[in-house]
Amino acid sequence: MYQLASELWEYPRSLTGDGLRATLHHLSTRLPDLQIHEVATGTRVGDWTIPKEWNLTRARLWNPSGELVCDTQRNNLHVLGYSIPFRGEVELSELQSHLYSLPEVPTAIPYVTSYYEPRWGLCLSHEVRSKLANGRYRVDIDTRLEVGSLTYADLLLPGERRDEILISTYVCHPSMANNELSGPVVTTELANYLRSLPNRRYTYRIVFAPETIGALTYLHLNFELLKQRVRAAFNVTCVGDDRTYSFLPTRDGNHQIDTVSRHVLRHLYPEYREYPWSQRGSDERQYSAPSVGIPMVSLMRSKYWEYPEYHTSLDDLEQVVSAQGLQGGFEAIRRAIDILEQDTIPLTRTIGEPMLSRRDLYSSVGAGRVSSSPQALLDVWSYCDGKLSALEIADILKIRFEDVKRLLKTLEEHDLVTSQPRLLKSSDI
Amino acid sequence: MYQLASELWEYPRSLTGDGLRATLHHLSTRLPDLQIHEVATGTRVGDWTIPKEWNLTRARLWNPSGELVCDTQRNNLHVLGYSIPFRGEVELSELQSHLYSLPEVPTAIPYVTSYYEPRWGLCLSHEVRSKLANGRYRVDIDTRLEVGSLTYADLLLPGERRDEILISTYVCHPSMANNELSGPVVTTELANYLRSLPNRRYTYRIVFAPETIGALTYLHLNFELLKQRVRAAFNVTCVGDDRTYSFLPTRDGNHQIDTVSRHVLRHLYPEYREYPWSQRGSDERQYSAPSVGIPMVSLMRSKYWEYPEYHTSLDDLEQVVSAQGLQGGFEAIRRAIDILEQDTIPLTRTIGEPMLSRRDLYSSVGAGRVSSSPQALLDVWSYCDGKLSALEIADILKIRFEDVKRLLKTLEEHDLVTSQPRLLKSSDI
Amino acid sequence: MYQLASELWEYPRSLTGDGLRATLHHLSTRLPDLQIHEVATGTRVGDWTIPKEWNLTRARLWNPSGELVCDTQRNNLHVLGYSIPFRGEVELSELQSHLYSLPEVPTAIPYVTSYYEPRWGLCLSHEVRSKLANGRYRVDIDTRLEVGSLTYADLLLPGERRDEILISTYVCHPSMANNELSGPVVTTELANYLRSLPNRRYTYRIVFAPETIGALTYLHLNFELLKQRVRAAFNVTCVGDDRTYSFLPTRDGNHQIDTVSRHVLRHLYPEYREYPWSQRGSDERQYSAPSVGIPMVSLMRSKYWEYPEYHTSLDDLEQVVSAQGLQGGFEAIRRAIDILEQDTIPLTRTIGEPMLSRRDLYSSVGAGRVSSSPQALLDVWSYCDGKLSALEIADILKIRFEDVKRLLKTLEEHDLVTSQPRLLKSSDI
Repeated sequence: MYQLASELWEYPRSLTGDGLRATLHHLSTRLPDLQIHEVATGTRVGDWTIPKEWNLTRARLWNPSGELVCDTQRNNLHVLGYSIPFRGEVELSELQSHLYSLPEVPTAIPYVTSYYEPRWGLCLSHEVRSKLANGRYRVDIDTRLEVGSLTYADLLLPGERRDEILISTYVCHPSMANNELSGPVVTTELANYLRSLPNRRYTYRIVFAPETIGALTYLHLNFELLKQRVRAAFNVTCVGDDRTYSFLPTRDGNHQIDTVSRHVLRHLYPEYREYPWSQRGSDERQYSAPSVGIPMVSLMRSKYWEYPEYHTSLDDLEQVVSAQGLQGGFEAIRRAIDILEQDTIPLTRTIGEPMLSRRDLYSSVGAGRVSSSPQALLDVWSYCDGKLSALEIADILKIRFEDVKRLLKTLEEHDLVTSQPRLLKSSDI
Repeated sequence: MYQLASELWEYPRSLTGDGLRATLHHLSTRLPDLQIHEVATGTRVGDWTIPKEWNLTRARLWNPSGELVCDTQRNNLHVLGYSIPFRGEVELSELQSHLYSLPEVPTAIPYVTSYYEPRWGLCLSHEVRSKLANGRYRVDIDTRLEVGSLTYADLLLPGERRDEILISTYVCHPSMANNELSGPVVTTELANYLRSLPNRRYTYRIVFAPETIGALTYLHLNFELLKQRVRAAFNVTCVGDDRTYSFLPTRDGNHQIDTVSRHVLRHLYPEYREYPWSQRGSDERQYSAPSVGIPMVSLMRSKYWEYPEYHTSLDDLEQVVSAQGLQGGFEAIRRAIDILEQDTIPLTRTIGEPMLSRRDLYSSVGAGRVSSSPQALLDVWSYCDGKLSALEIADILKIRFEDVKRLLKTLEEHDLVTSQPRLLKSSDI
Repeated sequence: MYQLASELWEYPRSLTGDGLRATLHHLSTRLPDLQIHEVATGTRVGDWTIPKEWNLTRARLWNPSGELVCDTQRNNLHVLGYSIPFRGEVELSELQSHLYSLPEVPTAIPYVTSYYEPRWGLCLSHEVRSKLANGRYRVDIDTRLEVGSLTYADLLLPGERRDEILISTYVCHPSMANNELSGPVVTTELANYLRSLPNRRYTYRIVFAPETIGALTYLHLNFELLKQRVRAAFNVTCVGDDRTYSFLPTRDGNHQIDTVSRHVLRHLYPEYREYPWSQRGSDERQYSAPSVGIPMVSLMRSKYWEYPEYHTSLDDLEQVVSAQGLQGGFEAIRRAIDILEQDTIPLTRTIGEPMLSRRDLYSSVGAGRVSSSPQALLDVWSYCDGKLSALEIADILKIRFEDVKRLLKTLEEHDLVTSQPRLLKSSDI
C-alpha cells in the first residue's frame, strides 16, 4: 500500500481534470475490472451542478529579484485549487490578497480551494510569506477552466446475495497522505482482499470519486439502486497514520454496522475515540442524507480536523503516513467486513449441556487463552438458542468475534451446534 | 400580572363562598368570555361531597385588656379556614386549643383550614401568641356554614383541532402570593396570550376552581369529554417568585408534555429541579388519577412545601412574588405551549446536501450564535427525514427549539425542506 | 431443618447408589407423597449416558506402621467419589498419585470425584499427607461399580392453574452442609409450606436428583411437559449459612422471576451480590439450556466457589451452616414464591382521589412506618390503573411488596380498588 501511495503522490488531483483521471487509470492497473466513468460538466446532480473541468499546467510566482517563490512543479499545493488563470505583475500589497498561508503552522503550505467562486491564488508557507520584500512580483498561473467532464470509477464484486455493501473513498486531494492518499490506497487493498474471498456473502460496490460533487454525482446516477440494495457502507478516509483509531458512527448510531464497527475497534484499540454525528465531514453527508439513509461509518486512524498536519503539505508520506499505519487502517475495515461476512446464528443440537469429556474437548478446543477453556466453550454454547448471533454472544461475553467463531467451529465439528448465516436486514438500516 | 394580583389580594377566598365568587367575577373583567358556574352544596362528586358554603363576615379576638389581638380585617389569614361561628369569652388555657401558630416561623400567621371537621379557630404569629397573658379572652368569629354552592369558572378557546390542552389553576387560597395568587394571574395572562394567537392548532380549556373539591367537581361534570379530548395539561401553581424553577412531571414521566417541559426548562434554567411523582400535591392528583390518566405537568418557580414562606402570611406580594417572577412563570408555560403549537416534522426535498453557497446561505441564515452557522443549518437538515420532529432534532443537537425552527424556516424558504405539523397523539398520553 | 440435616449427614451419597437411595427414602418420611424413581444405568439421556451404579462399603488406608490414616467410617469424604475398587500394598511414591489434598486449606479433606474416568483414590488433609513417612502402605477400597440404576424423586402439588413453578435441588453430595445438605433440607421445608397453602395459584413441581446427570435425566424424561408448562424455576442450593445473600439470575437476566427475586433480596439484604451468568455452576446449566429455556434462578446464601470451606470437610453443620442460616435461605425463596402467588393488578373504583378522612383512614391504615401514612395509601392508589402490578408499584415506590399488598388490602376493604391476579405469562419466560 505504501508503494502505491508513493506512485500516486505527484498527480495534480482536483475535483476534475487530468490529475484525477490519471490517478484512476493508475488504480486500474491494480484493479483490472475498475470501470472509469466521465460525466459532462454542467450536469445537474441534485441541488448541485458539475463545475467546469480544471487543469493545471504550471503555476509560478517570482519575487522582485526574479527568484522563484512558488512553483507547482516543486509542490502542487502551491496553487489555489480551481484557481482561474492569471499572468501579470502585481505589487506585493495587491498580491497579498491572493496569497494563502497558515500563521499557526508557519512551515506548512496550506491546502486551499475555491471551487465555486472564481479567484486566482497561490499558497505558501507563512515563513516564506512573511519574508517577502516590497516590490513587483511576477505571477504565471497557467490553468484552464473549460467544458469537459468529472471522472469517477467503480467496481462491482458480486456475491451470493444481491444486497450490497458500499465502500467509498475520494480521490480529489492533491499531494497529501493521510487525508487523502490513504483512502484510495486502502480501498484498493480492500477490493483485492474481497476479490480473493471464495464465497462472498454480499455484493460489494466500490466507488472512487471526488469528494462531495463526486458522491452527489454517484448518488444522482444510481439513486434507486443504491436505496434498494445497499445495506451498510464504509467511508474510507484518514486510514494511514499510526497514532490512534477514530470512529464516526452512522447518524442514528445504532445500526448493525455500528455494532460491528464498535466491536472491532474495542478489541483492536480500546482507547479509540468515537465522534458524534455533528463532527461528520466526508461523503456520509451525501450517502446518509435523510432522503437516502444509507448507514455509513468511518473507521479511521487520525480523523480529519483532529491532527496538526491536516490539510497542509506536512501531511506527507514520511512524517505522517507509514506502512504500519496503512496496514492498521486496512485491518480495522477488513475485520468489520469479516464479521458482516461470517456472522452466524448458532443453535444447539443437544437438550442439555454437551458432555465434553467423552469428546476430549477439555484439551482439543484450541491453544489461545480464551479458546482453550472448556468453560468458554460451554459459555458460548449456553447462548446457542437460535436467536442470538455470534457477534451478540461475543459482546455479551466481552470476547472477540473471532474467538466465538473458533469455539463455534469446535461445537459444529462435533455436531453439537448448527448455524445459519446472520444477514443484514432492512431493519439493520 | 402584578397589578392584577394586587387587586385580588384582599378577597377572603375559600373552597366556597363570596370571596371565591368575587375573585372569579373580578377575573371575568379581564376574560370577557369566562363562564362562571355554581354547583349546589351536598352534590356528590366522585367519592366526595361538596361541603356547605362558608362565608366570613369578620373574626376577632380581644385580650383581657380589651385590645384586639386578631382581626380578619387586618389579615384574613387570622381565621381558621371553614371555622364554625363562635362568640363568647374563654380562659387563655381553653383558648389555646383553638389557636394556630408556627413556632419555627415566629413572625408568620399560618394558613390553616378544617374543611371537613367542624371546629372554631384563629391563627396568629407565634411571637404574639407567646406573649398572651392569662385571663379571659373575648372571641367573635362571625362566619356562616350554609346551604349554597361551589363556584368555578372555565373558558374554551377553540382551535383547528378538537383535541384539547387543559390549563388548570386554583382560586381557593386567601391572601398569599406565590401559592396562590400567582396561578390565577399567570393563567389569565396565558388565556389572553392564547386568544391572541391567529391560528391555534389545539383547543384550550382553561379552568379556575378551588383546589381538590373544585377539580373533583370539574372532573365529575366533564368526565367523558375530558377523557376523550384532553391530550396534555398544565397545572398552573407557584409561578410567582424569582428564585428558581421546579418541575413536577406526569406520573409516568415519559409523555410528550414531559419532553416539551424538560426542553423548555433545560434551556431556560439548566439548574431547575425535577421532583418525583411522590412529591405531587395539587390538582394533578385528580386530573391524573388512574381512572382519568390526563398527563398533567407543573412548571413552577419555588414549589409548594419547598420555600420558607409557604402557607403563611409571609408569602406576600412584597418579599416573595415580583413582576419578574410572574413573568418568568408565564414564560416557561408559554414556551411549552409554543412548542406544542409549532412543532413540525420536516422532510428534505433534495437528494444530497443542499448547496448553500449558491443561495448565499453562508451569511443569510441569521444573526444569533447558533443560527448563523451554515454547519448548524446542515446539521438540522441532516435530520429532516420525515420521521423526527423539530423538537427531537433540537434535543439531539442540544440546541433550542426556537433555533431549530429558525433554521428550518430558512430551509423552507429556499424550498429545501417541507414540514408537516407534529400533533399530540393518543400514544403521547 | 437443622435436625433433618443432621439426620441426613452420614449417608454416603453419590450420583447413584444406596447412599442416594437412602437419602431420598429418608426425605419421603417428611414428604409422604414423594415419588421415588429408578432409571437404569446405561440409559442415554441427551448427550450423556447414565454411568454404572457406585456403592461404597468402606475405604481405608494404613501406614507402614499399620495405623489407619483414612477410613470412610470416620468421614466419607476420604474416598475419591466413584473410585474403582483396589486392594493391595503400594510404596508411598506410587500412592501419592492416588492421593488428593488441598495445600491452601491444610486441615480440610477435599471433596473430589472421578465419575467418568476410572481411577482409584483417597482424599485426606494436607496436614496429614505431608507427614506420611516412606514405606509400604496398605490400601483397601471396597467399592462396586455395577449395573443398576440412578435414583431421583419428585413431587407434584397441583394448583388452580396447570402452569408450573419448578423447584429443583440436588442430593448427590456426601457429608457437606452448605453445599449441599442445605438444598434438600430447605426444599423439603418449601414443599411443606406449599402444601399448607389453601389455594395455590400455580402447580409446583419439586425435584430431588443428583446434580447434572440427574437433571439431564429428568429433562430427558419430561422434556415436552417441562417446556410447555414450567413458567419459572428455582434452583435451591447453598442456602444454609448466615453470612450473606447471593443471586444467580436467569441467563437473560430480565424475566419476571428475576424481577421478583431482586425485589426480595433488595429488601431482605440490600448488600446481596448478583453474579453474572458466566458464574453459573449448577442445574440451571441444564434447565436453562438454550433448547429448553426455563428461566431458573438461584437465591443463595454463600455461593458455591465463593466461601473458603466450599467442597471440603470444613463445610459442616457446626461452623458453616446454622438453623438461622437455613431459615434465612428458606425465607428468601418463600417470599419470592409468595409474590408469584399473590401479585395482583389493582384498578381504582373512584374517579378522583378517595376521601380518606370520612373513612377514618388517616389512622386505620396500620401500624408500620410505611403503611401508617395516608400519603403511602394515596401513592399506591395513584398507580392503580389496571396496568401496573402490585410488585411494579412496590418497585416504583421503592417499598416492599408486602407493604403495597397491605395498603391495597385497606383500599379493597373500602371498595376503593378491585384487583385481578397477575399471572406469569409466556412473555415472562
